[in-house]
Amino acid sequence: MVNQVQRGDGTLSSRSDSSAASASGGDSSKESSRCSTPVLDADRTDRLRYKMRRRMESGDHWFSLEFFPPRTASGAVNLISRFDRMGSGGPLFIDITWHPSGDPGSDKETSSMMIASTAVNYCGLESVLHLTCCNQSKDNISRHLSKAKHLGLKNIMALRGDPVGSDWEEEEEGFNYAVDLVKHIRSEFDDYFDICVAGYPTGHPEAHSYKEDLIYLKEKVAAGADFVITQLFFRAETFLKGVYAYLDQQCVCVQGYQSLRQLVKLSKLEVPEEITRVIEPIKDNDAAIRNYGIHQALEMCRVLLDSGRVPGLHFYTLNREVATMEVLRQLGMWQEDPRRPMPWAVSAHPKRKVEDVRPIFWGSRPKSYIYRTQDWDEFPNGRWGNSSSPAFGELNDYYLFYLKSKSSKDALLVFEVFTCYIAAQPNRKGHKVMCLPWNDEPLAPETNMLKDELEKVNTRGVLTINSQPNINGKPSTDPIVGWGPPGGYVFQKAYLEFFTSSENVNALLKVLKKYEPRVNYHIVNVHGRNLTNAPDMQPNAVTWGIFPGREIVQPTVVDPVSFMFWKDEAFALWIEQWAKLYEDESPSRMIIKYIHDNYFLVNLVDNDFPLDSCLWQVIEDMFELLQTGLDTGDLEATKLFHVFPI
Amino acid sequence: MVNQVQRGDGTLSSRSDSSAASASGGDSSKESSRCSTPVLDADRTDRLRYKMRRRMESGDHWFSLEFFPPRTASGAVNLISRFDRMGSGGPLFIDITWHPSGDPGSDKETSSMMIASTAVNYCGLESVLHLTCCNQSKDNISRHLSKAKHLGLKNIMALRGDPVGSDWEEEEEGFNYAVDLVKHIRSEFDDYFDICVAGYPTGHPEAHSYKEDLIYLKEKVAAGADFVITQLFFRAETFLKGVYAYLDQQCVCVQGYQSLRQLVKLSKLEVPEEITRVIEPIKDNDAAIRNYGIHQALEMCRVLLDSGRVPGLHFYTLNREVATMEVLRQLGMWQEDPRRPMPWAVSAHPKRKVEDVRPIFWGSRPKSYIYRTQDWDEFPNGRWGNSSSPAFGELNDYYLFYLKSKSSKDALLVFEVFTCYIAAQPNRKGHKVMCLPWNDEPLAPETNMLKDELEKVNTRGVLTINSQPNINGKPSTDPIVGWGPPGGYVFQKAYLEFFTSSENVNALLKVLKKYEPRVNYHIVNVHGRNLTNAPDMQPNAVTWGIFPGREIVQPTVVDPVSFMFWKDEAFALWIEQWAKLYEDESPSRMIIKYIHDNYFLVNLVDNDFPLDSCLWQVIEDMFELLQTGLDTGDLEATKLFHVFPI
Repeated sequence: MVNQVQRGDGTLSSRSDSSAASASGGDSSKESSRCSTPVLDADRTDRLRYKMRRRMESGDHWFSLEFFPPRTASGAVNLISRFDRMGSGGPLFIDITWHPSGDPGSDKETSSMMIASTAVNYCGLESVLHLTCCNQSKDNISRHLSKAKHLGLKNIMALRGDPVGSDWEEEEEGFNYAVDLVKHIRSEFDDYFDICVAGYPTGHPEAHSYKEDLIYLKEKVAAGADFVITQLFFRAETFLKGVYAYLDQQCVCVQGYQSLRQLVKLSKLEVPEEITRVIEPIKDNDAAIRNYGIHQALEMCRVLLDSGRVPGLHFYTLNREVATMEVLRQLGMWQEDPRRPMPWAVSAHPKRKVEDVRPIFWGSRPKSYIYRTQDWDEFPNGRWGNSSSPAFGELNDYYLFYLKSKSSKDALLVFEVFTCYIAAQPNRKGHKVMCLPWNDEPLAPETNMLKDELEKVNTRGVLTINSQPNINGKPSTDPIVGWGPPGGYVFQKAYLEFFTSSENVNALLKVLKKYEPRVNYHIVNVHGRNLTNAPDMQPNAVTWGIFPGREIVQPTVVDPVSFMFWKDEAFALWIEQWAKLYEDESPSRMIIKYIHDNYFLVNLVDNDFPLDSCLWQVIEDMFELLQTGLDTGDLEATKLFHVFPI
Repeated sequence: MVNQVQRGDGTLSSRSDSSAASASGGDSSKESSRCSTPVLDADRTDRLRYKMRRRMESGDHWFSLEFFPPRTASGAVNLISRFDRMGSGGPLFIDITWHPSGDPGSDKETSSMMIASTAVNYCGLESVLHLTCCNQSKDNISRHLSKAKHLGLKNIMALRGDPVGSDWEEEEEGFNYAVDLVKHIRSEFDDYFDICVAGYPTGHPEAHSYKEDLIYLKEKVAAGADFVITQLFFRAETFLKGVYAYLDQQCVCVQGYQSLRQLVKLSKLEVPEEITRVIEPIKDNDAAIRNYGIHQALEMCRVLLDSGRVPGLHFYTLNREVATMEVLRQLGMWQEDPRRPMPWAVSAHPKRKVEDVRPIFWGSRPKSYIYRTQDWDEFPNGRWGNSSSPAFGELNDYYLFYLKSKSSKDALLVFEVFTCYIAAQPNRKGHKVMCLPWNDEPLAPETNMLKDELEKVNTRGVLTINSQPNINGKPSTDPIVGWGPPGGYVFQKAYLEFFTSSENVNALLKVLKKYEPRVNYHIVNVHGRNLTNAPDMQPNAVTWGIFPGREIVQPTVVDPVSFMFWKDEAFALWIEQWAKLYEDESPSRMIIKYIHDNYFLVNLVDNDFPLDSCLWQVIEDMFELLQTGLDTGDLEATKLFHVFPI
């Protein structure tokens, strides 16, 4: 299915060249003055057609998932959560359909364009954007393609689309067939996009003959299409006896099905009689129909895979997940234990392919980090380097629609909320605290390793928002803390980040003197400058990995400069995502406002990663010092408030 | 002694600025597009005056060593070895005297200029070059200074020097006093150089009065001198009662003595009577005089240090080492267990201050690596990065005078020579094999950890030239494998590099399949291309360190690209440094030529650093396979010789 035939313009060799370039670290031809990246994982950096080629060579079947754009904003939020969940099963790519009547190329949260962009940039999914050309001007199509390129989309499914009205006629110079769109993409955008086209196992419904249709398909491939996805079909034989025989060395992707009732509604194809015969008697029993659908799909997929002629299965999900996941699980194709390519959620934007280091602060808010750095030309690679003036996106244009929300109104006793969150316990009103403003997602599994300690300090006013345990050389395949390719070892320095009162901070600063140089700290309030013992304001690597035949990869750092940007965001979240849930002058809002104005944000790193983390002892010492009483006339305390004018 | 008074031109504040810049990573004002370096060790990157200031602030006394340029080339070789030995004791700097009659600014191996350059670039010593201005044109002086700057020298001792002839008179516009030279340096080279001037504890011999001389000294300081070294003196009181009182807040370095007889010859100063009284009766007893000299120097140094007014001691070594080292040892100032700032021998050239990664291949030939990369504008830092076209210096202009030599004529049985070298045993002719062409120096202490295994494989024709054991997180202060600042942990992957026959290589390649991907290899013969399993030709980090508050430092890599440059050098050494010891057509020369033409250079890395090295097992398996017999019709073997056209 990957295009290996020579194109009319003889560009095959130039493609092999870019393949080679890609293998050695990205296919960008731009001369970069920065160090090149270690490229841990070719699958992360290669373009789709090379990924397919590698999987075909290794005989490793893949699956892919098709979604349509949602109708409402809340539908979009749900769909994006679904991308995260279904993405973890390991699809080779997903694709987003294109419906000309729904303003698919707009900036709306629900447009095909924006949904595909979100899948690529925020969910890290290799994505294919459908595009139809029927009744479209060349300018319009070029505009869509330029926008897609700008957003980081690399793959287009080139379709004719359904003509509007019944009296459609070919336009001279217009886009009459998908092949015209393929030619247009190649002539305007050269080799930038990977192009997919549709194949019809029984011929296109409008084609004069099956054979004629196959001629069109071959034309599309000759014009530069890279791979073919078939229209859906209900019988494996349809595919195996059909297209495959004619396309000779071309393999073809298979479009499966699972939720039969909806397919029947949507598809213009006839449903085979043996299927309607089964369905008719159980048509009012949803569960029975679903089970039958799963059973049918499973059978068909097995026949196709066993044929040895099908490299991958493409699932039309209808934006649902249960049935597709069930079929894939039973086929053994669903990745139950997903490997993390990096310790943080990667982006699939081509510009970010080389990204291999991020500040730890956005660990629980990766989408925010991606959003705020989307205009960067280069991503720090190899090392964080000189970040003295990183242009983080402004906070005021920062709230993506799907980053809003989720906060609950259950919070009055702030400490209790934090504690309940860590303990995964319901609060006194019986509501489970599922997330805090500083965390996009539920607690990471590794945070559970610290649960007891976190719970204990939160009840005492050390309001933790980020942490990681120390790790001294666990295999990179470790299910909880592992990341990167197998055969490596991963390491971490213990990290703890929290809000706490100025009284606590005074005690903490005294305690920290005992822990020099083992513990590095940054302490800041909403107005203040960074009080730190970081040497020369350099970044501290807190997560790193050693892999066969590679340089050291250090994907997470505590960076003094970006900490100040994070500080603004972290303090703003008290107000924007929490205080605003309550009315002005309400007690809840006043408490939160007080914390915002008076508390400090603290982060601590224990550099001695082979030993047990001393950070809990640091906190313990702080509490102890508070109990025995601080010398109130102490110069240190006075000095602190000079450093931080409140 | 560090200049802290305000200069006439009020440049004090600009100096403080550059001090701040220096603290955050080098004082180069040039905007670099490369990543900044982690700066492990401020002492390595700071300029001399800041190092002094830090030592004065911490109350940590220093010592420094003065040498004169050698008369002969072999004297130069000896002096450079002495630099390496005495450098390990931890002098804050060394200085090289300037003798106008000896062509001190020339390119000769023995010139002051070239000796100082060698000390900086190859021995990594902070060095001060003396420069006298008497009877010199401004152009001439500027030429010397430009050359010094180009060679990486950062410190000048500005002296008037002795006038030629007895009828010297002041020249208008000429250099009449050292202060003229100081002014000239500051006006032509701004703040580039740190400038040292001489102080005379009892006044300059030619000064009209002691007080007048002190006025001159103050002028020199006001003109921009950074610190003062006194002329030598024999009594601590001379110094303590003299200059110190007048210079107010200026501390002054003390020039001591140790080999009294030579001092008496050289110095124009009078020897105190109590000293001549002791010496006269023992004047024919060298040992007695030396002991007395050491005793006297020790006494004086103790008085000076105890006075609390002397931050450092400057030793006039007369190019000898025993007495100076003895005095310093007894004072407790000699660093017995020198810390390595990096696992390789660093250079003190300002351009190389940020250098923090090198290929492992030149590990035993660091001077060769420095020489061949001296024209690089930037040094890979943070990571080796894209080294696709590093411009290594050509082999034909490669032999520095002091890199020649040392080979002995004892080699006929090559394997025996290698084995004797590893075992530190005499060979059959009774000569100890002290070095091989591939090693500048005796075996590193860590290589002793591998001695038994190395010995075993060398007897069987695996001719090892480089190796390191695996290290899984030893403290950075470990006396054998440690490097970098305290509080860190160092790691290594096991490494082995050797020459061996094509028969062995055929077996090795089969064996290595069992060790994928644990072992990475590069195999090459004198003509061939690199046969390797290195992923995407990326560098493999084989030495790295984790330090408090820092990014990961990875100073040694196995880099596929530079390996090809090393290959040329390593094969050439057979011919240039070994075969040429023997006559044409002699059996020894023929054997060596055969090895050069037919053997392969192999390097192996065991990526699984937490486990025991498997590399010995790899070699063992190779021998075993050779004994059980290779399938001679084997395709692999055939293929190998296709890959390497011999």
